[in-house]
Amino acid sequence: MFQINTNYQKLPGSYLFSTIAKKVNAYSAANPDKKIIRLGIGDVTQPIAPAIIEALHKAVDEMGHAETFHGYAPDLGYDFLRKAIAQNDYRDRGCDISEDEIFVSDGAKSDSANIQELFAADSKIAVCDPVYPVYVDSNVMAGRTGTYDPKTEIWSDVIYMPCTADNHFVPEFPKETPDLIYLCLPNNPTGTTLTKDKLQEWVDYANRVGAVIIYDGAYEAYISEENVAHSVYECDGAKTCAIELKSFSKNAGFTGVRLGYAVVPKELKCGGVSLRDMWARRHGTKFNGAPYIVQRAGEAVYSPEGKAQLKEQVAYYMKNAAAIKEGLKDAGYTVFGGVNAPYIWLKTPEGMTSWDFFDYLLEQANVVGTPGSGFGPSGEGYFRLTAFGTYENTLAALERIKKL
Amino acid sequence: MFQINTNYQKLPGSYLFSTIAKKVNAYSAANPDKKIIRLGIGDVTQPIAPAIIEALHKAVDEMGHAETFHGYAPDLGYDFLRKAIAQNDYRDRGCDISEDEIFVSDGAKSDSANIQELFAADSKIAVCDPVYPVYVDSNVMAGRTGTYDPKTEIWSDVIYMPCTADNHFVPEFPKETPDLIYLCLPNNPTGTTLTKDKLQEWVDYANRVGAVIIYDGAYEAYISEENVAHSVYECDGAKTCAIELKSFSKNAGFTGVRLGYAVVPKELKCGGVSLRDMWARRHGTKFNGAPYIVQRAGEAVYSPEGKAQLKEQVAYYMKNAAAIKEGLKDAGYTVFGGVNAPYIWLKTPEGMTSWDFFDYLLEQANVVGTPGSGFGPSGEGYFRLTAFGTYENTLAALERIKKL
Repeated sequence: MFQINTNYQKLPGSYLFSTIAKKVNAYSAANPDKKIIRLGIGDVTQPIAPAIIEALHKAVDEMGHAETFHGYAPDLGYDFLRKAIAQNDYRDRGCDISEDEIFVSDGAKSDSANIQELFAADSKIAVCDPVYPVYVDSNVMAGRTGTYDPKTEIWSDVIYMPCTADNHFVPEFPKETPDLIYLCLPNNPTGTTLTKDKLQEWVDYANRVGAVIIYDGAYEAYISEENVAHSVYECDGAKTCAIELKSFSKNAGFTGVRLGYAVVPKELKCGGVSLRDMWARRHGTKFNGAPYIVQRAGEAVYSPEGKAQLKEQVAYYMKNAAAIKEGLKDAGYTVFGGVNAPYIWLKTPEGMTSWDFFDYLLEQANVVGTPGSGFGPSGEGYFRLTAFGTYENTLAALERIKKL
Repeated sequence: MFQINTNYQKLPGSYLFSTIAKKVNAYSAANPDKKIIRLGIGDVTQPIAPAIIEALHKAVDEMGHAETFHGYAPDLGYDFLRKAIAQNDYRDRGCDISEDEIFVSDGAKSDSANIQELFAADSKIAVCDPVYPVYVDSNVMAGRTGTYDPKTEIWSDVIYMPCTADNHFVPEFPKETPDLIYLCLPNNPTGTTLTKDKLQEWVDYANRVGAVIIYDGAYEAYISEENVAHSVYECDGAKTCAIELKSFSKNAGFTGVRLGYAVVPKELKCGGVSLRDMWARRHGTKFNGAPYIVQRAGEAVYSPEGKAQLKEQVAYYMKNAAAIKEGLKDAGYTVFGGVNAPYIWLKTPEGMTSWDFFDYLLEQANVVGTPGSGFGPSGEGYFRLTAFGTYENTLAALERIKKL
């Protein structure tokens, strides 16, 4: 009789955002007259920018004619997109990354879940706490995390690096040496980030102890401060210790279009084995490329028109972030983030757990946020609001929260 | 110091189609004046059908306006597509499959590589030989295949089921009991298939020994004979032992559009654990849905116009298949397949290995095919040609082969 991968049974409950969706749907079904405002899941609301829509239409037309039809894409992505990425996201910023170190994918969620496959089964992972659930859950499925204590919500074999107001959301080097360090900067869910100097210390640490940093830069477009790195490769030595994951979801509104990429530098090796070559092999074996039309859309992100339109889109969301931050402060809340990221991280009112506050906000204000404890034990007592709503809805949500 | 997943190093050489691409590129660079005809990789050449192009344009327009913009898709696929699949591919054929057993993905290659994750690390896999390389390679990466003998090209822990002219390409029940049985029907690479009665025997066998059949139905649209099942669920008892993978690549030309789906029936369980729920959890954690515009394109595949246009497209390729089969026979070759599948499987001329014949055909006729041995040891002495070229190129390739 066949047997299953029993690691799946270790996963507590369901994926955070599925749980939220179920709760909201149930409330909505019971209260059909209530207008719910969703500032929970980090999904964008602004339409795809005109320059990108134009590129999509053009690519669709190409697919409709034999002379310009495109079948299977190159395993690792089309050259036109890999070149645009290497030039705009790296070389223009002084980072020496070449197109053959860039791997186009269907999004950073897939990449961040799949990247662990390159590493030994007994690799020790370190995560910030709170953290994007995919990093831990994908390692649970691979059997790397030990046993789960439902009381503390802690996995026995995961190294947690608490990030709370107490340490200004700056993770400290762990006592135990990790093999893999997941860093999401600017951070989801806290909306905070590290200075470039602090990031350099992490790169130096990783090189010193022989760890790999999985650097999730999905929110890079929201960086507004000068002393924050736009890529981990701005740090000296990052090419021997870091893999960078990037998304088109948040800078270009591609949550429903699906496009991302990973950078695996040639210098990143274990013994003589190149991780770049391993990732290329994985792409070739387990993936068949992002759609041609979507890769053309990605290319348009880097056109002069695309860049100008997306700058406006990011500014639109950051106006929301500022409004939330100020509005919540006025209402007496303690708030973090929102300066280099589209997330606001707030302390729940005295005595309320994160899920208490979730229910309270849903039922009393019909506003959906994300409970901090869903991101890890140190998220307890915090709550995440996103700036990805419309400006009107964001203001309306704030009015409702202020009236509570 | 971090360690890698050393299973990757066990993989011999590179992925088959990458190797072919490299050889062809090298020949092409050295002989820029030669016009190469590619009948190797199973990539389509006909443009996307008009009804689908229209659906794509419409969906792109929706993405450009706030009122009709779509962000993250539902984890498991949009209802409109899952319903169209359940109705057209299953219920209309008398198979009792519901939409919540259907999981939309970015293609059958990803699904067929990822599905093994649901099973125990020591699961024993059985594959037809020759076989689509992804089934074995994805299990190599997961450490299930033992050691590789480069001389015999055999993995110590894989159960091989030879399919050659000697047994009319019908796999026999293996001596050792497998946990997972990969069946691709109609078959890639041999272009042959099983009768429905024979498939029923396999379903009965799987239920009897407690194995799961991973049923790859990517080429279902090419079935022309009455006594061949279009879905494994046409067989009694398949819902307790089979997962079906389907692709839009070959029936609708989506190789560069990327769309597929998996069916995991609710009745498929290990002890009390539902594999459907496990796959749902995997989708929720490691995948973020296929693009909205692509799912709308998938829906158009099932519209009356879409169906009519795709019937013509399949007929076009099957005309190629018939031409190749007849042409090769006339030229004295022994050929198989091509009746229920877009692949022709031929015996290489006396004394030539599959790769010898690959080089011979590339250099003497400038025609690219796929060496049978690339699909497994029992593929040695065979060679695959695809019917996915244009009709003109197909005839031209045949003329060149006849002149050899």
